[in-house]
Parts: sequence; C-alpha cells; structure tokens
Amino acid sequence: MPLSGFRVVDLTRVVAGPFCTMLLADLGAEVIKIEPPGEGDPIRAQGAIRNGISWYYAGHNRNKKSLALDLYQAEGKAVLADLIARSDVLVENYRPGVLAKMGFDEARLKALNPGLVVASVNGYGSTGPYAERPAFDFIAQAMSGFMSVNGFADGPPLRAANPISDLVAGLYAALGVAAALANRTKGGGGQRLETSLLTGMISLLSYIGAAHLATGKLPARTGNAHHVVAPYGLFRAADGEIAVAPSYDEIVERFLGAIGLKHLLDDPLYADNAARLANRASLNALVDEAIGRKSREDWIGILNKAGVPCGRVLNLAEMFADPQVQAQEMVLAVPHPGHDVVRMTGFPIKFEGTPCRIRRHAPALGEHTGEVLRLLGRDEAEIARLKAKGIV
Amino acid sequence: MPLSGFRVVDLTRVVAGPFCTMLLADLGAEVIKIEPPGEGDPIRAQGAIRNGISWYYAGHNRNKKSLALDLYQAEGKAVLADLIARSDVLVENYRPGVLAKMGFDEARLKALNPGLVVASVNGYGSTGPYAERPAFDFIAQAMSGFMSVNGFADGPPLRAANPISDLVAGLYAALGVAAALANRTKGGGGQRLETSLLTGMISLLSYIGAAHLATGKLPARTGNAHHVVAPYGLFRAADGEIAVAPSYDEIVERFLGAIGLKHLLDDPLYADNAARLANRASLNALVDEAIGRKSREDWIGILNKAGVPCGRVLNLAEMFADPQVQAQEMVLAVPHPGHDVVRMTGFPIKFEGTPCRIRRHAPALGEHTGEVLRLLGRDEAEIARLKAKGIV
Repeated sequence: MPLSGFRVVDLTRVVAGPFCTMLLADLGAEVIKIEPPGEGDPIRAQGAIRNGISWYYAGHNRNKKSLALDLYQAEGKAVLADLIARSDVLVENYRPGVLAKMGFDEARLKALNPGLVVASVNGYGSTGPYAERPAFDFIAQAMSGFMSVNGFADGPPLRAANPISDLVAGLYAALGVAAALANRTKGGGGQRLETSLLTGMISLLSYIGAAHLATGKLPARTGNAHHVVAPYGLFRAADGEIAVAPSYDEIVERFLGAIGLKHLLDDPLYADNAARLANRASLNALVDEAIGRKSREDWIGILNKAGVPCGRVLNLAEMFADPQVQAQEMVLAVPHPGHDVVRMTGFPIKFEGTPCRIRRHAPALGEHTGEVLRLLGRDEAEIARLKAKGIV
Repeated sequence: MPLSGFRVVDLTRVVAGPFCTMLLADLGAEVIKIEPPGEGDPIRAQGAIRNGISWYYAGHNRNKKSLALDLYQAEGKAVLADLIARSDVLVENYRPGVLAKMGFDEARLKALNPGLVVASVNGYGSTGPYAERPAFDFIAQAMSGFMSVNGFADGPPLRAANPISDLVAGLYAALGVAAALANRTKGGGGQRLETSLLTGMISLLSYIGAAHLATGKLPARTGNAHHVVAPYGLFRAADGEIAVAPSYDEIVERFLGAIGLKHLLDDPLYADNAARLANRASLNALVDEAIGRKSREDWIGILNKAGVPCGRVLNLAEMFADPQVQAQEMVLAVPHPGHDVVRMTGFPIKFEGTPCRIRRHAPALGEHTGEVLRLLGRDEAEIARLKAKGIV
C-alpha cells in the first residue's frame, strides 16, 4: 500500500485529527492511536451504538492500533518519547501549545527524531489573535464565510450538517503528511506542518471567493439555484424532484431539446443566459410543467443520454442502496470480534496497484499496548509493572 | 518544497482536476497544464473578470505552466507522449475512457513511462452503471446523500453553494498522488489511481452516515441546530447573531454560567441534555434573551475566555478582513504582468521547513509552450513549424 512502512504516532481525538490518521491508515501507514487508559477517545461513547460499539468510532478509527498511555505521568511520557524515536510521523490536534507544555516542544521532538514529520490540526492556526480559542466545526463554518453563502435568499446563513470543516482539515493534514513523506524519502528531513478548520474552509471558496475579491460584492444566497446560470436546480418530475445542472449554453440547448422546450431559445424571454436569469421564475415553471409529464427514472435516463448532468436527490438509505454506490464499494461490512459486523463508508481513492483495504477493525482501547511496548524493548515484567501502575 | 522535483502533466479543466493540480503545484511540483490552442481552459472566460483576467481562473491555476497543444492532431499527441515519458505524474479529469480513446490507454502509458502515477478525477468512478454519465458538482451533492441532510426541517434538501464535491475530489486526488509518490520514491512503481465527486462526498458523511447505517433511520434536517446537543446554534446578541457550539455537558455548564443562566441546570426542564433537547425552543428563547444584553464582540470575548467555542457568522468581506484570516495569510495579492494584481485565497497547509508560496502567477495560454518543447528536445525551427501548423 502507498504508505506502508511508515509509522504514525496518533495523538488525536474526536473528529479532525482521527479523520487524518484514518486516511493515513487506509493508505497503509501503521497508525498507533494513543488514548488515556480507562476512558480513551471520547467518541468511543458517542454516535449511534449498535451491538455494544459506536459505529462512528469504528468508522473513523479503522485500520489503527490502540496504545493506552497516561501522558500525565513521567513514565507515560517516556514511552511516548521512545515511540516517537521509532516513528516517521506524529499527528496531534491539541490546542496550539499544549504538546509543548506536555514536554514535547519542537527542540525535544527534533532531538528525539530529526526525521519526524509533525502534523498539527487546530481550529484557527497556531499564530494570530485567535490561536488560543477553543475550536469547533460549526464555528469554523461560521467564521470562514462558508455559511454566509449557503441557504435561501429569504433565510439565514446555514451550516452544512456534517462536520465538513473537521473533515477538510483532516484531509489537508493527510495531504501535508504524504507530501512531507515524499519529500523526506527523496532526501529532505523531517519537518512540522499544520492546518486548521478555518483556513481549510476558506481555501474552498473557489469562484465565490474569487468573485468577491474581484468585485467587492457580497454574493446573495440562492438556495439550490445557480448564481449565474438558468435553468438549473431541482425540478418536479411526476414522482418527485430531480436535480439538473446544465452549466453552459450547449447543455442548456440539449436539456430544453430533451424536454420538448427547444423553441424557448427562439423566444427573446429565454434566448440567452442573461434573459433566462432575468426570467428564471417563468422559465422554471415551464420546465417544471414539462418535467412533470414523466417519472424521475425516465428523465434521468433521457437526460443523461442527452449529455445533461442530472440525478435524484437521494436520502441516505437510497444512496447506500444505489447500484453505483454499491459498485464503487462505498459501504463496507467489517467483521468486528465481539460486536458482529460494523458497516461504514468505503474508500474514495481507488488505487489500481495498491488498493486501500480494511486490514483491521477499529481497536479496543489498549488492544495493542503489549505489542507496542514490546516493539519499544519493554519486557513482560516491565509491561506488567506499567499496567499495575495505570500508566498503560 | 515538499513536491519539488516532480513533474506533473496536467490534462484537466474546469474545477475538480485543476484544483488537484493547483494543490500539487502549491506543494512544489512542476505542473504543466495542457490546453487547446486558441481557446484554453474554459474557465479562463468564466467567473469575475477584473483588469482583463478571470480571478477564478487565476486562483485555481497559480503556480502552473501552460503548454498549448492540439491533442486532436497526431503531432500534438507525439508531443504529449514525449512529455509523459519525462514526467512523474499525469492528472486528467476526462470522462472515463476518453484518454484511452485519444490513444493513451493503460498499456501505452506504461510503455511510455513505467514509473508514471496516473490520477483520474471523474464524476462517479470509472466502473459501475453510471460511469459514463456526465457529471457536475450539484448532481454529486444530490446523489451522495449530502443534500438530504442539509437545510431546515420544513424546507427542501439543500446544496452547499461552493462546488464542494469538485474540491473534495481534487483534494483526494492530490492526496492519492502524494501517497503514490511517497511509495514510488521508496521503491514502488508507477500506478493508476482515481477518485470521484460522488465517492468523495460519501466519504464525508461521518457520524451522520454511521448513525444511519447503525439504526436504519433517516436523519431529519435540523438547520443550524445540532442533531443531539442543545443549546447550540445561532443566538441573537444586541447587534446581531453569534454561533455557539457547546458540544458536551462541561461546556454547556461553562456557557450557561457565562451568560448568567447556570440555575437552569437545576431546573428539571433543562437539567440534562435529553431534557434540553426536548425543551429546545424554550431554552433557546431564554438563551437569546440573555445573549441579547451584550454585543457580539463582548460575548465572543467572554465565551472564548470561558472555553466555549463561539464566533460571528462572517460574510466574505468581514472574513477576508478578519485579523486571524490576515494573520494566517489567507488572502494573497499576486502581481500579474499586464493585469495589475490578482487577489486569491492562501495556503491552508503551513509547512515550517518548506512553506508553500507563489512561484508564478497563473499562466497565459501557451506561455510555456517554447520552454516545454525545448525541454523535449525540439529546436527553434521545429517549434516554429508546430506553431505554424496550429499544433502548439
């Protein structure tokens, strides 16, 4: 697998950091998740629990190992230091400064392992006036400008329901780690990198951000309609809505042709995109009327064949059951000893040579404590002593 | 820079692919963008134009070079073959099968360059019943289940306004390329990888997807409220709304304490999270009343100090002017010869050793045609001949 042979010390918890280390583990890295003895990552107890296990925890922590380790005790810190010395990457999502306060500042990490890649995921970045603020996905969505453009013109700014800023930050951190490893393997040294919930979301503003920077204008919220293209959006077929996205003139022509409204292009009210935008309401009514004459599946067949991007708005049950989603193996059923089978989303990157796969289910708390301590040269007596003291 | 020394042949256009190659270019790779002579990437003419240049195009194509090349002509294909032989990565976002039809199927690519990493970004994956469908961001948002969970309980499913599925696919493709390069540098060979708009969005469903898989229940749309936590959301300060996200009991206690409502925790109506969820409306009204007594900035200071994640909902003008956003250098002003200065969003990954930076503004169409052809051993007479024939 692409990252096999690389060992990752995982000091993350909750969403953003664990999503980063899940991606690295899916890519083949050996990820050793360090958790406080007795409690572990708080998400072990969160989300939907089935057969005695959180499927949220199980999904975000697949392919990882777990080392229970008390980092408040000196002997726990010594184990961490030994592990750092034998690893390639450290990922953490503490608030900025916390890792240094625990005794692992930059100089110490460099002394322990000059080749170490250290990745930090935080809320707002480790410098600047808000560096110390507590972070949370919803706040990053609000402060990044992302919410301000989502929603309907007559409604409030709206977040995305999933923790998108956490996940995007995790993705960027994984990209940073993989790039730093490619660089190190070429002869570069170790180094630190960081990303944040806030900066990741800002980086995704794309043409909306560019338009604001160029014009100074604030974009209106437009719901499911496109800012500058019509027709576009959800239209009512006989048995429900379909999403249709004809993004430029040629595809609009194919769309109107396929639904029997090509003549509208001869009408000055709808002849070009500017006219169609100005008369969007009446145009949408005409399109709805035409679309209403057949079912969703009929239209999806007809329009895709005509080269018009379209599809149903699927709820989660419909999506997971969809034949394309199944063909892409986007639902995995992972046997989990003691907890039957856990289902989770699959791998979005398909490698032909070294495909991602489930090598192990998410670990029980401390499941690999003995294995990791033996790797670090501790003998059975020492392991027993550390366990008795509650350090591991 | 992390990926310097790697050369990328960029056969992408519009959003998803160019965002991938922008990330690779930002990380230091030499990205050679191949565009049809005369027209180029369609987004050169899209988005807000200022001083004669599309700021959307300029942002997504910074740090790249441009080679104008007609791939419909045999001599153009020969130039591409030569370039592939001297590169490390090829990225493309044609519909599945198109690259092979152009004469560059898997066997040919392997013959040209056995170490080549080939990354494809497409709509739905290259296998499965929808592989051939035309793709578009809005449709991937609809089919991935993402839209079904966004919006208000009494409203329709809602997309994100930015092309999130394109951008996420671009991010995954960049991650796949960086991981494949790390693997190749360790001694692995070249390989193909792909990702899609649909699968990327599915991979981000996180606890919402996990809850559905575990319970079979369809999540309700909850607007800006949290599915399982209260209080949470937007609250009305004296001069506007603030976002507040107390995600577990300890932080709820800090929040209610900071706004003078700690006594509510002794009231059976609000004593625990289940009670607070059941009585969310009356609780929110009490919180709004308390929050209404001070300004946004007052509360943001007080609550952050108390360890409660909170912030303003910033519009794009406020966000780009925000001191944290400025401190994180998330707006770059890039001198662009002939077009004054173009502003664009900055780099979300901060490397300490090898920081991302602007090495060059987005290229004019064919700006590097001569440079690339000379690299491929073509002399000036040959370059002039190819230009005269309209091949470059």
